Amino acid sequence: MENIEKIRHSLAHLLAKAVLIIDPKAQLGVGPTIESGFYYDFRLSKKIDESVLAKLESLMRDAINQNLGFKPKRLKLAEAKKFFKNQPFKLELINDLAKYGTTSWQEIQTSAKTKKTKKNKISDASLYQTGDFVDLCRGGHVKKTKEIRLDAFKLTKIAGAYWRGDEKNQMLTRIYGVAFETKKELDEYLERQKTAEIYNHRVLGDQLDIFMISEKVGSGLPLFLPRGEFIKNQLINLMREKEERYGYQYVSTPVLAESALYEASGHKKYFGNEMYRFNDPEGNEVFIKPMSCPHHHMIYQRLVKSYRDLPLRLAEPGTVYRFERSGALYGLMRVRGPITQNDSHIYVDRERLADEFRNVLKLFNEFYGQIKISDKCWYRLSLPDFKGKNKEKFGGDEKLWRWAANEIKKVAVGEKLNLTIGIGEASFYGPKLDLQIRNIFGKEETLSTIQIDIVVPKRMGLFYLDKNNKKVEPIVIHRAVIGSYERFIGFFLESTRGDLPLWLSETQIMIVPIGEKHLNRAKKVAAELLAKNIRAKVSLPNESLNKRILFLEKEKIPYLAIIGDREEANGSVALRGRHRKDLGEFKLGRLIDKVKKEILTKMN
Amino acid sequence: MENIEKIRHSLAHLLAKAVLIIDPKAQLGVGPTIESGFYYDFRLSKKIDESVLAKLESLMRDAINQNLGFKPKRLKLAEAKKFFKNQPFKLELINDLAKYGTTSWQEIQTSAKTKKTKKNKISDASLYQTGDFVDLCRGGHVKKTKEIRLDAFKLTKIAGAYWRGDEKNQMLTRIYGVAFETKKELDEYLERQKTAEIYNHRVLGDQLDIFMISEKVGSGLPLFLPRGEFIKNQLINLMREKEERYGYQYVSTPVLAESALYEASGHKKYFGNEMYRFNDPEGNEVFIKPMSCPHHHMIYQRLVKSYRDLPLRLAEPGTVYRFERSGALYGLMRVRGPITQNDSHIYVDRERLADEFRNVLKLFNEFYGQIKISDKCWYRLSLPDFKGKNKEKFGGDEKLWRWAANEIKKVAVGEKLNLTIGIGEASFYGPKLDLQIRNIFGKEETLSTIQIDIVVPKRMGLFYLDKNNKKVEPIVIHRAVIGSYERFIGFFLESTRGDLPLWLSETQIMIVPIGEKHLNRAKKVAAELLAKNIRAKVSLPNESLNKRILFLEKEKIPYLAIIGDREEANGSVALRGRHRKDLGEFKLGRLIDKVKKEILTKMN
Repeated sequence: MENIEKIRHSLAHLLAKAVLIIDPKAQLGVGPTIESGFYYDFRLSKKIDESVLAKLESLMRDAINQNLGFKPKRLKLAEAKKFFKNQPFKLELINDLAKYGTTSWQEIQTSAKTKKTKKNKISDASLYQTGDFVDLCRGGHVKKTKEIRLDAFKLTKIAGAYWRGDEKNQMLTRIYGVAFETKKELDEYLERQKTAEIYNHRVLGDQLDIFMISEKVGSGLPLFLPRGEFIKNQLINLMREKEERYGYQYVSTPVLAESALYEASGHKKYFGNEMYRFNDPEGNEVFIKPMSCPHHHMIYQRLVKSYRDLPLRLAEPGTVYRFERSGALYGLMRVRGPITQNDSHIYVDRERLADEFRNVLKLFNEFYGQIKISDKCWYRLSLPDFKGKNKEKFGGDEKLWRWAANEIKKVAVGEKLNLTIGIGEASFYGPKLDLQIRNIFGKEETLSTIQIDIVVPKRMGLFYLDKNNKKVEPIVIHRAVIGSYERFIGFFLESTRGDLPLWLSETQIMIVPIGEKHLNRAKKVAAELLAKNIRAKVSLPNESLNKRILFLEKEKIPYLAIIGDREEANGSVALRGRHRKDLGEFKLGRLIDKVKKEILTKMN
Repeated sequence: MENIEKIRHSLAHLLAKAVLIIDPKAQLGVGPTIESGFYYDFRLSKKIDESVLAKLESLMRDAINQNLGFKPKRLKLAEAKKFFKNQPFKLELINDLAKYGTTSWQEIQTSAKTKKTKKNKISDASLYQTGDFVDLCRGGHVKKTKEIRLDAFKLTKIAGAYWRGDEKNQMLTRIYGVAFETKKELDEYLERQKTAEIYNHRVLGDQLDIFMISEKVGSGLPLFLPRGEFIKNQLINLMREKEERYGYQYVSTPVLAESALYEASGHKKYFGNEMYRFNDPEGNEVFIKPMSCPHHHMIYQRLVKSYRDLPLRLAEPGTVYRFERSGALYGLMRVRGPITQNDSHIYVDRERLADEFRNVLKLFNEFYGQIKISDKCWYRLSLPDFKGKNKEKFGGDEKLWRWAANEIKKVAVGEKLNLTIGIGEASFYGPKLDLQIRNIFGKEETLSTIQIDIVVPKRMGLFYLDKNNKKVEPIVIHRAVIGSYERFIGFFLESTRGDLPLWLSETQIMIVPIGEKHLNRAKKVAAELLAKNIRAKVSLPNESLNKRILFLEKEKIPYLAIIGDREEANGSVALRGRHRKDLGEFKLGRLIDKVKKEILTKMN
């Protein structure tokens, strides 16, 4: 275990110890580490609010100053039950250990369903003592509490949480903390959080009228407002232009399909719980598609006869929907839908797999080179774990799996990608390469993906006739350069802090007449810019200049072109960039040149 | 009743009479008139096929030649039951007359559901005798059979049909006939049918790889192949370009919404049976949207505060889904989805309603003037029937209804539209103006619509602040210039017989090298055309020239540019238009000019 993990885990114990001091009747749940920190769940005997956090921190610091150790103890399960007789949640965990050999709620639920209780023959419970506080715990602590810096942790918030994360259980009180090895790291983290609160895409999306959530429409179903739709449409058009140049053909498929399709593809088995499904009035089981590949496979069957028809590259900004628990929903990044995928399926023979894979990477590089966030991204190559216990998860022929994994690894290494490798993380139909990014809170997320499919074509009976007139299954590359347009817009808003490049700005330049008498000139300038395909608007002089400029800055309009007496006389504008940057006086021709050049670069 | 209706109805009797001659045990269903003809349903005692139709026609002509009359009779219901004691379907109808006062299956089902049996106190049955044949019938016949021209009718086909159209009932044999007043009309009709069989959009859609239906995906869920998607995308882009010029703002909304939205809008009440609905795993009732207006209304609430924000014109190529019985599905014209609407909602105050309505008509004229089918279309103005019995259907204030109906009628008349008027056909929320067209079979269909909504804004609490700071509900214009893109493509394919204009042709010109040695030159020519944004492809010389040309003609490629020795030497091509039209030799520059000019006109 890494040292920082030990620190965080130790702090969870100290938090529980502190809580028992202010509320001796508190019942203890569990206290794991999480990204950047830890939490502990309690059933408290009295209500608390965040004002108590300072007191708890101070009690934790007292414990640290005493330089306590974490003394391991092993008790027979029966003895442990006696020890925790007043802690019902701990008792439940010990009982689970006895019955299922695990305290993992997921494993227990699976066991309960399959009625297989695989007893690991656990007879002892592991406990740790810190001063007068004893917890049921697998271990992983600092040796002495003095290893924890007094100024490098902080309790951050209190929230409700279901016991074991299951909404059928009772609601407990969860206290969160963050912790690092040094104060500097903590300060940086807290600063990042503060930034994230201003510049996370939900806040920006609202402030800039990008999207809205409507209570009547429902959770997880964002509506794109004109400015957001503009961005989405620009991105869709950009990708279409690129993909057509790369030889993709666009198709368009319905959002519904009957059961037969997903039975054939295997998605019903592997994806069932995330798919919206219902029976239509004629009794057919209908699904809302969670991905477009099975639809595209039907088009493959229609269009491909021989190897001469390969590679076939089908593309679609396909809209899919997936059920997510309401608790998991988050802005544009975790939605029920629409998820508009920048989706494509490339059908290829084995001989040309590496070439096609390389072409896909070329397109990735082209796009992410243009958009200025490639330095914040890295790739994650997910391979099957041939030795692991989840081996049965990977369908099909092991030799083929090994060949395909090797094929794409060779290309990825050859292209010198910034690469991490995840063993055992392949999809059910093949190895994959994901593009990763951190969101503004520092959490790792997948932005987009390239997946090799060596299983489904055979299962669905896709084939082509090779040179010898023999039936062969194609390999499918599933790829989404942009991932989903909605998610991408979320990340891009955060990454740019809402300062969108010109080509994604619905209004590129706002002509700002100082007074009523400059309005005519402003309208003329706007018309001239519009005629040059520059998206210009006029700010009506119905409020003071300062008020209007403040408003336009909040709206993050890229350029303000101010026109007063002098500018009107000179045939010019006083140009301001974002963040009050004075760019000086521009004659109209020079302004047009500057803006048009900037639009074309698709960069700024 | 029109004379032709009388002829058709009389022929239905003569058909039943003829069937009883060849199958005296046949049980008679019903025999109504339909568009262009009539049918009669039978339960036959022996199997028949279409070879029997000539015999039946001949028996019908015999009856006509006898110049029979249609003698009316009235019997007490009890007597009528005795008379039809061997005809169980007629008995069922008589019993329904006794119980429900009607034989309409729909009215009976409604009565059965609501348990209201509104007895019209019917005591007699109406029968008509023709020679030895007697039928239960409300009347409407020719006086004497000699009024029917022997050569102006034809029995066309035999099909299965559920008794009373209900799949829970038994399957009967339906014999169809067509009939006109003159042989000329019949011949024209049959010719049109023959054409329609070749050029209906389902046949063309398949032949030209426009769309496919996949059994696994399901009925009524067409998949657009690359060539079809190309057409749809071109149309969407064209409309976007136009609509942005007309001041529309694009938005993008999910295909799902929870129950609250459609309860608020009233659609749950009025549209419930056509909407796909289900419960999600968290127990929310979710709908797949059958239209986008309620979503747009939520955006209105977000964007509009005062009259200064009006008119707000929201547009979306919104994809909607509607449940249709599988029997009603038809190609792209009657689908479950996707129905990609060229949808827009214009929110306006009363003062500006007429202006906005006129602007919408202007956009209609602009589009349908460009597309060459406007001469085949006409408008249908649907107004409420203030005196009619369906008055309760029209929600809201009668004065407002009258005002709105008058307002759009004035504009429609002022614009000199080719207009028919339908009283009592308004939608539940206001009067509307539909654009009508005949499909290739001659059937009237609605292509697109403009609807005034004076009911839903109030119901949903939409408002703006007027000049006096008072809350006022806006009026909404729902309009779809193109209707749904899928339906439009269906009509347009039929209307052009698949000869799509250049701008909708995925391949505009095919370069056809006569032999292998001309391939390089062909590729060069294609590259030069591509560089000028002309979509050119090369036909590889892997088969004989004639075979390739035949294939390309079937594919309806607009231009073939053939290159042999002479053309290669001259730097030219031998150009052919559709239908083997020889256009002569074209130097490259002249070719480019010709094609580019044609693309720009968006006409041919």
